[in-house]
Amino acid sequence: MQSGIMRVTVWGENEHDRTNEKVKAIYPDGMHSTIAASIRGHLTDRVEVRTATLEQPEHGLTEEVLDNTDVLTWWGHMAHHKVDDAIVARVHKRVLAGMGLVVLHSGHLSKIFIKLMGTSCSLRWRDDDSETVFTVNPGHPIARGVPAAFRIPEQEMYGEYFDIPQPDELVFISSFKGGEVFRSGCCFTRGQGRIFYFSPGHETYPVYHQSEVQRVIANAVEWVYQPEKQSYVTTSCINSPLGWMNS
Amino acid sequence: MQSGIMRVTVWGENEHDRTNEKVKAIYPDGMHSTIAASIRGHLTDRVEVRTATLEQPEHGLTEEVLDNTDVLTWWGHMAHHKVDDAIVARVHKRVLAGMGLVVLHSGHLSKIFIKLMGTSCSLRWRDDDSETVFTVNPGHPIARGVPAAFRIPEQEMYGEYFDIPQPDELVFISSFKGGEVFRSGCCFTRGQGRIFYFSPGHETYPVYHQSEVQRVIANAVEWVYQPEKQSYVTTSCINSPLGWMNS
Amino acid sequence: MQSGIMRVTVWGENEHDRTNEKVKAIYPDGMHSTIAASIRGHLTDRVEVRTATLEQPEHGLTEEVLDNTDVLTWWGHMAHHKVDDAIVARVHKRVLAGMGLVVLHSGHLSKIFIKLMGTSCSLRWRDDDSETVFTVNPGHPIARGVPAAFRIPEQEMYGEYFDIPQPDELVFISSFKGGEVFRSGCCFTRGQGRIFYFSPGHETYPVYHQSEVQRVIANAVEWVYQPEKQSYVTTSCINSPLGWMNS
Amino acid sequence: MQSGIMRVTVWGENEHDRTNEKVKAIYPDGMHSTIAASIRGHLTDRVEVRTATLEQPEHGLTEEVLDNTDVLTWWGHMAHHKVDDAIVARVHKRVLAGMGLVVLHSGHLSKIFIKLMGTSCSLRWRDDDSETVFTVNPGHPIARGVPAAFRIPEQEMYGEYFDIPQPDELVFISSFKGGEVFRSGCCFTRGQGRIFYFSPGHETYPVYHQSEVQRVIANAVEWVYQPEKQSYVTTSCINSPLGWMNS
Repeated sequence: MQSGIMRVTVWGENEHDRTNEKVKAIYPDGMHSTIAASIRGHLTDRVEVRTATLEQPEHGLTEEVLDNTDVLTWWGHMAHHKVDDAIVARVHKRVLAGMGLVVLHSGHLSKIFIKLMGTSCSLRWRDDDSETVFTVNPGHPIARGVPAAFRIPEQEMYGEYFDIPQPDELVFISSFKGGEVFRSGCCFTRGQGRIFYFSPGHETYPVYHQSEVQRVIANAVEWVYQPEKQSYVTTSCINSPLGWMNS
Repeated sequence: MQSGIMRVTVWGENEHDRTNEKVKAIYPDGMHSTIAASIRGHLTDRVEVRTATLEQPEHGLTEEVLDNTDVLTWWGHMAHHKVDDAIVARVHKRVLAGMGLVVLHSGHLSKIFIKLMGTSCSLRWRDDDSETVFTVNPGHPIARGVPAAFRIPEQEMYGEYFDIPQPDELVFISSFKGGEVFRSGCCFTRGQGRIFYFSPGHETYPVYHQSEVQRVIANAVEWVYQPEKQSYVTTSCINSPLGWMNS
Repeated sequence: MQSGIMRVTVWGENEHDRTNEKVKAIYPDGMHSTIAASIRGHLTDRVEVRTATLEQPEHGLTEEVLDNTDVLTWWGHMAHHKVDDAIVARVHKRVLAGMGLVVLHSGHLSKIFIKLMGTSCSLRWRDDDSETVFTVNPGHPIARGVPAAFRIPEQEMYGEYFDIPQPDELVFISSFKGGEVFRSGCCFTRGQGRIFYFSPGHETYPVYHQSEVQRVIANAVEWVYQPEKQSYVTTSCINSPLGWMNS
Repeated sequence: MQSGIMRVTVWGENEHDRTNEKVKAIYPDGMHSTIAASIRGHLTDRVEVRTATLEQPEHGLTEEVLDNTDVLTWWGHMAHHKVDDAIVARVHKRVLAGMGLVVLHSGHLSKIFIKLMGTSCSLRWRDDDSETVFTVNPGHPIARGVPAAFRIPEQEMYGEYFDIPQPDELVFISSFKGGEVFRSGCCFTRGQGRIFYFSPGHETYPVYHQSEVQRVIANAVEWVYQPEKQSYVTTSCINSPLGWMNS
């Protein structure tokens, strides 16, 4: 079970990043580049990281790319509707078969997250706030090296009720200036795939430059990574005659 | 919080019921009629039960019917693909808003269950078996009055791996002749809605005439029933200015 | 499964209540009397409520009292160590056999809660704060009739990390002036028994006079109540020869 | 987060192993030696394995040994009562602080498991059976390389109801000749510690020589292992003045 090299694809919508001056100032090469660099920096020679963006053919998520992706991270916001349903179905199938998925911030309304959750994934929100993230599961691998609490000076408020299934494991809860709370770090398993949702990351603030946030994302990549998929099928119905176990 | 009358709609695909002689012999008025009668028998004056079937306009699930439905039960098998996507979306929306849903047997592959679960909901299967159901959560309301174990003499085998999210609460596990096991009684909450999946019920066997099975379904109707929905919206994103809590 | 009369015993430590002038002013007949009256007020003729306190023989929790108790609520703080281990074992046995338990505020450090949880149940705290409670599971019976968010003007701060097992269902999360968050409404099932922990309720503030808090406690009494225990044993190992299921 | 060397202590009761001829024939150096060798064989240079047994001073679990233990495995059966309560308290404290624990077979009635679970941990049982283990969470790290189903030719029957808290994650379910089912692979987190219970392993059968069982135990050691504990305290109440997060 010794891990091999984790092959990570960082997906970015890359719209704000090219059109919004504030975002361009913070993320001159796009948010995906900063996230990718951070993962490389934390996991060094244990990881290979590429990026893919919405405007590329097949949104950069061809069968060939996904064949070589162990972990996909997803950031989108203003253009969820532009993501082709066929690509969403392709990613969904891969997750159920064991590809890890890390969904960031406004990705809560992405087609892929909604499809995997089965709920509306809606929430309360407000611009111009700050966030404090608390660890509520200190023994969880995603909390390793993360303080009991840390502040993100500038953040959008995301508040409850967050319409998701109860997470299999809840790792972080955040609070905001108005007193709002939010389940900000949520683990799910769907099929063979592991999914981590992490809410910090509004595009107009330098959230992905912050060390604690980077550590959480690197930990999440490791946690969702499956070094070895099952050799048997887990996503189709199988007529199983008596004795199938011996075959 | 005293409960009012529970308004239950028993949905049946009603295809085998009209075309298969074996099924007609067991369920002369259709499986849905037997299930409806059983719920009435168990919950008496606390329940109003109607039925709806695939061949009816809008599959019998008009807005008006759903406006008057607190709990929907669902049995389908050979015609899942004939269920209109718009009706599925309508039911899905109602579940998230608090309508209870009891999914039976081959309903595991219904569009509505797959949409709510986010996974393939596939499993192993084999005709011509028998099932023993064990209670693994004896304090759960759905297990009330149900023995520690009971046999269903004739049943199709449904076996693991069952590709569903880990249930919020697991109430029953079954075994079969070949030694297979199955998570046969599974509780989920999605949005404000509660969902119970119960696997017994192959159409060519008199499963829904069996007293223990009837008791489980009646208990499930009670458990998924919400006497009072929230007065606030839980399925749309809400821009929440500072001070919204005082409004 | 129609519910009978719920027999509730409200247990109070009753130490602060007799010695602290501030507490006496808020709860002249003891906190337990206020809590008991509130449960009676909400559940009316569906409930019979008695109280029991630490200084009574066997802390008021004789076998005879527990034989006639369906739901026990527990508030203690300064005298957890004075509760006799034999009484704790007695209550523990009853919970596993199906008696409901509602643990309030500083009861998180009671012997019975620690014994049931298996963890330290420790937390962060600070006097002189205020609390906002958010519903994170709006379809849960304990959230019925409870607003999306409500404020408790004066409360002690209880903050994460709260060293409990992950709740089977999380219903409320609170925040405090310092930005702290806390899993304030937690559901557990242990054996046949259901347990709800609810953190509001510092003795020097009129928390149990607040309507939202009263509603939550009444809902919790209903949720932990089991109208019907299993007829089979669930807390002893049973040698089960082949064929036991037919016996 | 790159793992260091995992320091594993395999604890064995070592009573049957010395007194029962059948057990001695299967495990000439004691069951603990076979389990230890298997862990070494699977995890090779990533692990250091020692053993400890009941008859040693402090049952071989001195403070110094535990200071150098990342993962403890536990097998006991006939002598649970001989384990000193002070040692149980010592191990309990370590688990909450992040030491991993793998509890095997009849260890379900060990003092440490009961203390961590908070329930009776009782079950149904019968000698002289065989077991089939099914994977119900194929994406879980403990299921890696483990078949969809595998048989253990000779095993004691352990059957439901198993009186444990609902596992945080359920990985395996087993069935037996009499049709019984059992949650045989159960994950729990308590404090910072991870716990895996795995039920195969009756002393009079060569269960721990079987490759699938060995693989599960090795996977479990990896899963419960924490390479890095939190730098903050998680098992004591902490008075936290406003501003503590900045300290």
